[in-house]
Amino acid sequence: MKGIYKGYIHLNYKPSENDLVCEFRIEPAKGVSMRMASEAVAAESSVGTWTDVKTAGPNIMRKAAKVFYIKPPCVRIAYPSELFEAGNMPCILSSVAGNVFGMKELNNLRLEDIHWPEWLMKSFKGPLYGIPGVRKILNVYDRPLCGTIIKPKLGLGWREHAKVAYEAWCGGIDIVKDDENLTSQSFNKFEERVTETLRLRDKAETETGERKMYMANVSAETNEMIRRAKFVKNAGGEYVMVDILTVGWAGLQTLRDANEELRLVLHAHRAGHAAMTRNKRHGISMLVIADIARLIGVDQLHIGTAVGKMEGPKKEVIELGEEIEKGFLMEKGHRMSEQWRHLKPVFAVCSGGLHPGHVPTLVRMLGNDIIIQAGGGVHGHPKGTRAGATAMRQAINAVMEGKTLSEYAKMHKELKAVIDKWGWVK
Amino acid sequence: MKGIYKGYIHLNYKPSENDLVCEFRIEPAKGVSMRMASEAVAAESSVGTWTDVKTAGPNIMRKAAKVFYIKPPCVRIAYPSELFEAGNMPCILSSVAGNVFGMKELNNLRLEDIHWPEWLMKSFKGPLYGIPGVRKILNVYDRPLCGTIIKPKLGLGWREHAKVAYEAWCGGIDIVKDDENLTSQSFNKFEERVTETLRLRDKAETETGERKMYMANVSAETNEMIRRAKFVKNAGGEYVMVDILTVGWAGLQTLRDANEELRLVLHAHRAGHAAMTRNKRHGISMLVIADIARLIGVDQLHIGTAVGKMEGPKKEVIELGEEIEKGFLMEKGHRMSEQWRHLKPVFAVCSGGLHPGHVPTLVRMLGNDIIIQAGGGVHGHPKGTRAGATAMRQAINAVMEGKTLSEYAKMHKELKAVIDKWGWVK
Repeated sequence: MKGIYKGYIHLNYKPSENDLVCEFRIEPAKGVSMRMASEAVAAESSVGTWTDVKTAGPNIMRKAAKVFYIKPPCVRIAYPSELFEAGNMPCILSSVAGNVFGMKELNNLRLEDIHWPEWLMKSFKGPLYGIPGVRKILNVYDRPLCGTIIKPKLGLGWREHAKVAYEAWCGGIDIVKDDENLTSQSFNKFEERVTETLRLRDKAETETGERKMYMANVSAETNEMIRRAKFVKNAGGEYVMVDILTVGWAGLQTLRDANEELRLVLHAHRAGHAAMTRNKRHGISMLVIADIARLIGVDQLHIGTAVGKMEGPKKEVIELGEEIEKGFLMEKGHRMSEQWRHLKPVFAVCSGGLHPGHVPTLVRMLGNDIIIQAGGGVHGHPKGTRAGATAMRQAINAVMEGKTLSEYAKMHKELKAVIDKWGWVK
Repeated sequence: MKGIYKGYIHLNYKPSENDLVCEFRIEPAKGVSMRMASEAVAAESSVGTWTDVKTAGPNIMRKAAKVFYIKPPCVRIAYPSELFEAGNMPCILSSVAGNVFGMKELNNLRLEDIHWPEWLMKSFKGPLYGIPGVRKILNVYDRPLCGTIIKPKLGLGWREHAKVAYEAWCGGIDIVKDDENLTSQSFNKFEERVTETLRLRDKAETETGERKMYMANVSAETNEMIRRAKFVKNAGGEYVMVDILTVGWAGLQTLRDANEELRLVLHAHRAGHAAMTRNKRHGISMLVIADIARLIGVDQLHIGTAVGKMEGPKKEVIELGEEIEKGFLMEKGHRMSEQWRHLKPVFAVCSGGLHPGHVPTLVRMLGNDIIIQAGGGVHGHPKGTRAGATAMRQAINAVMEGKTLSEYAKMHKELKAVIDKWGWVK
């Protein structure tokens, strides 16, 4: 194959502060050099096509993307600011995460990281609350937050749903979440569920003296999603959750815009991400998705667990936790440096196959600024939801007090029961 | 690894007509059997989790998904209708294309096809125009439509953009399209581009006596996208295009809803699809994405070329063409049978590295009901855009008249010039 894209390699180029920079991992097709494949990516994601066109004047290449770093299998490409429209996430991704994945010059292509220039960062709202805001609402400053997902994930009616939530709150859970595929099914309509669950939230708050939160899943067509978010607000809710990948970026931006007025905490579930993030040779990294979620402005984001039912190596989970929670990031491997400026830290959520026995590892790995969610790990307690919630809270208390779970379990029967059932990781 | 999901395999089950059925290709993780992996997928995508929960009453398993067919590496799973909310695409995908891709029981998982039950089909609008409507608007019934993308893809100002469009129309092109990453950049603002391009469209219509179409790219945050679509309508446009994957399903549904009033033709670009569709062992097939686009209701969809600059095997392109254009599909390989009912046929668009020399192959492969788009293949003509457009139209005429391109090129100098430059495929 001959190289048909020319003029995109500038190894002496230093990106300007207004450039957007991407790191790609590239596996060229047979007979294609790394340089040729890199040029193909830079061309297709900026101003080029497969042949010379008569309409391209002498100034066009000023707007071309520049490959300025090649260290196989990785390359970095700098994109001039003119290529992008401020505040339009679909537009940006149609360039740098669009046609390039399908090019014949490559067998595999993975978008590993995006470095966002200040002018583009400023064009997105970012989190409304972030970690400090969420902690203030919950009035909990000194420990990980403790969440549960109502289980079974689908099947309970709205009355049962609300009762299970109530039991969880009374047992010690801070935040109750709908599961990612529960929206407004015939057996559990959104409005009835939200009204009843918030009614029992008030009861649980009175009885426990703690703030309690309910995250209703509003994922739907955009207008319906906004309507549901308003319903939650009017019903006295403080939180909504959204499946950011199945809803998509345009809808998420719209929800965030509407939230300037609604002032709800936005919880981001990442259902479906692994279709494009799991293969380490092709697709889009979760790091990039986490960046986008922080830019658009979710307050909480699932980052994996390293220890639960889902795939996701420890190193990646830690990296994601840093990416969304820190203000400044040093360059490290694929990850480029980033100064997050006005964008508040996003609360990292660990969820997926967790139980109290995982708490010590998660806190050691990610610190106190996490939300530990257990669904089966709460409702699977031999004595049921309330005891399971208590056991979760006990596990967190144990870690905060510097005690091992075995030690703490001696005096706390709810924790003991789950340690006996599922064990614990030191 | 022990199997922790129980009760999801029913090999004697026959899906009811209200079930949604998925075909998955599964590669189990080491030490996991195909049965165990299938149960994990069925559980996580319906009502199950990794442990028994006390909240699951005896009726829950009535709503469970059922693995009814296992032929490694493929399995089919039937989902009861109660699991889904009518008309909510994010909800459906959060179930069947959500967490399952990340499960530890699998190394790879690909969602190959979805069979849509009538009740769910009815809950989506489907194409407003489809092939018959588009042909009526263009007043062209007997040949493939002929499109171009303005190139360079980014860089031209709005005045130049409109002029290039005018040249293309006058040369013989039916439909002019913005490129997927052109939205409203500083050097080419949406409103100015649309106004000027539609002004020159009117001029081209007068001069040629043919209908001419301009597809403005409205991809953006949902409300802005709808605002831009309205702007196009008010400016006298008949078409908009949208990057369906970077915009996302919630936004696309909203655009389609708004289109009940706007009555625009919706052209769907698939930028970014290959991040999840290209790997044949993991992710989501383009067939599934094409189904979703047809259900929500786009009128035109990119399906690949088999012969251009993008990856996409011939077999897959033909299959996609059938899937979106036919009313009934027989079961074939991964593809399940489908009766598309009220959902009009979607015009298949071939685009990506095409030139007039590809026209005979494309028509032989896909028939007359295609839109053949060439960007570089028009503007890269040695004599420029107008001659390139004429050459494209000549290639189509040649095929319609049953002549070879070499034969036709003898009497048509514009076609001859491109055959000399790029050759042609018999």
